[in-house]
Amino acid sequence: MKQLIAVDWGTSSLRAALLDGQGRVLAEHSSARGILTVAPGEFAPVLVAACADLARPAGHFYLLSGMVGSRQGWKEAPYCPCPAGFAAISARLAWVEAGAQLGRCAIVPGLSHEHLGVPDVMRGEETQVLGALDLLGLDEGLFVLPGTHSKWVRVRAGRIEGFSTFMTGEFYALLRKHSILARTMPAEDGALDEQAFKQGVARAWQAGSLLHSAFSARTLSLFERLPAAALPSYLSGLVIGEELRSQQLDAAQGPVVVIGAPELTRRYEFALRDFGLTVRCVGAEATWRGLWAIAQTLES
Amino acid sequence: MKQLIAVDWGTSSLRAALLDGQGRVLAEHSSARGILTVAPGEFAPVLVAACADLARPAGHFYLLSGMVGSRQGWKEAPYCPCPAGFAAISARLAWVEAGAQLGRCAIVPGLSHEHLGVPDVMRGEETQVLGALDLLGLDEGLFVLPGTHSKWVRVRAGRIEGFSTFMTGEFYALLRKHSILARTMPAEDGALDEQAFKQGVARAWQAGSLLHSAFSARTLSLFERLPAAALPSYLSGLVIGEELRSQQLDAAQGPVVVIGAPELTRRYEFALRDFGLTVRCVGAEATWRGLWAIAQTLES
Repeated sequence: MKQLIAVDWGTSSLRAALLDGQGRVLAEHSSARGILTVAPGEFAPVLVAACADLARPAGHFYLLSGMVGSRQGWKEAPYCPCPAGFAAISARLAWVEAGAQLGRCAIVPGLSHEHLGVPDVMRGEETQVLGALDLLGLDEGLFVLPGTHSKWVRVRAGRIEGFSTFMTGEFYALLRKHSILARTMPAEDGALDEQAFKQGVARAWQAGSLLHSAFSARTLSLFERLPAAALPSYLSGLVIGEELRSQQLDAAQGPVVVIGAPELTRRYEFALRDFGLTVRCVGAEATWRGLWAIAQTLES
Repeated sequence: MKQLIAVDWGTSSLRAALLDGQGRVLAEHSSARGILTVAPGEFAPVLVAACADLARPAGHFYLLSGMVGSRQGWKEAPYCPCPAGFAAISARLAWVEAGAQLGRCAIVPGLSHEHLGVPDVMRGEETQVLGALDLLGLDEGLFVLPGTHSKWVRVRAGRIEGFSTFMTGEFYALLRKHSILARTMPAEDGALDEQAFKQGVARAWQAGSLLHSAFSARTLSLFERLPAAALPSYLSGLVIGEELRSQQLDAAQGPVVVIGAPELTRRYEFALRDFGLTVRCVGAEATWRGLWAIAQTLES
C-alpha cells in the first residue's frame, strides 16, 4: 500500500498526517481551520495548504473523517446505518472531486443508529473505534469516546452494532460557565482534585439524576464542606459519574476501551476502575489507524 | 387576630399583601425590588415604600419569607433543620429592627435537610408548603414546587420531614439558551405543544439520563421528525420527565400537591396524571396563607 494522507477535519480544527504503507505516522500538521472557518468552494485549497508541509500534494490518496462530511462540511456523506463495520463504511465513502492539485479524495460517512424510535448519530468517532479495534486486535467490546458529546459504542464481530450519545462535556461547560454553580467556582479549573472528583462520581451514583446531584455542588460550597478550588473537579465527577451510572455496566464484563486525549480518558479510567472494571486507553492514534485501516480495505 | 402584612421577598421581586384576621387578601402590591436591587441599610425604606399602597405602615405585624432571610438579604435567618413544622419555624423567626416607620417585623427561616451526608436547602418554599397544608386541611403528603430549583417535599404529622432540590428550570434555561440545542429552536417558546411535551416526558423515562435524552432534541430535529416550533415543548417534557423519573413515585400513593403558577403546575399535572397519580394544584395564595398561618401560631 502506498502512502496515505489521513485527515481529521472537525468543527474547530483540522489535523492531517502522512502515513506510510504500514500506517506509521511520518509527519503531522494541525491548525484551527475547522469547517466552520471554511467558505464553500474553499475546502480543496485549505486542504492543499494544510498538507503542504507533509508531502507534495498530488498523487496521494486523501481520506477524511469528521464533521467535514456533514451538511455544513465539504460534501455531505450520508449516515451509514448500524450495524456497520469496515466493509459497510468503505462501500459508502463519499468521493470528492478535489481537482488536479490533490489526488483521490474521500470522506468517511458518519453512522446512525435507531433505538426505541429515536435516532442517534456520530461523525468521526466511527473511525476512531475502527482504529482502536485494529490497534488492539479486537473484534468486539464496549468503547467510550469522552467529549462534548460522549459516545458509548458496542462492537460485535467487527461491526459497530449500536451507540448512544451523552452530552456530558457540554453539560459540564453549561454548568461551569452559565449556571448558579459558576458563582462559587474559581475562574480556572486548575489541576484535577482526584478526591473531589471521586466524591462527585459517588454522589452521581447516589443521587439518581444530575438535576438533583448538581445542586450538591452549591450546598457543599454553601456549608463550606468543599473549598471553591475543588468544585470544578467535583462537578466533573458529577457529570462523568452520571454518564457511567446510565450504562448497563457489569463488573464481570470485558475491558472497557476509552478513546481520547489522556486528560479526559484518565478521568473515565479512574471512575471505571473504581466500579471494578478493567480499562484500556487509546489516544489520538486511533483516528490515524482507523483511516489507514479503512484505506487498506480499498486496496485489498 | 389583627391584620397582617405578608411579604414574599425574593431575589428578583418583592410582593406584599395586606391580610385580614381570617387571612383574606385585602390588597396586594408587587414590584421588581428583589433583594439583589437593595443596598444594605435600605431594606426598611424599600419595604415602607412597597407597603404604602396597602395600609398606613406603622402598627402592623410584617412577616417576610424568601431570600430576604439569606446572607445577601436584610438579615440572615439561619436554616431550621428538618423535621420542622409550624412550631419549629415560629420559634426560629429572625426578628428585625425595622424602626419606628414599621411595626413588628420578622423573617421566616429557610429549612435545611441532610440526606446521605449532603445538605439541601430551601427559602420561601417552606412557607408555601405550610400554606398549602392549611388551605387543603392536610397534615401529610408529597408536595412539589416547580421552578428554577424545584423542591420535592415530604410532610408527615404536619411537619416537613425532608426535601430534595432539582435544578429543572435552570437546566431548561441552560439547554434552551446556551447549548447546541438552541441552534435549531425558535427565538420564543410559543404556546405549549402538549403532544411534544408528553413525547419528551416519555423519552425522559426511557432514556435514563438527561445527558442522553437531551441529545434526542437534536437528532429528532436533524431527521425532521419534530418541527422546530415543537422543540421547546419537547425539551420541557424532557427535563420535567427527568425530574419525575427520579422520584420514588407510586401510582397507589395519595395525591401529589403541586404548588406554583398555573403555566408551570399545569405541565406537572399533565405528566403526573399520565403516570396514574392524582394531583391537586395550589397557586400563589399558598404563600399568603402560609405567612398568615405562621403568624397565627404567635397569637395563640
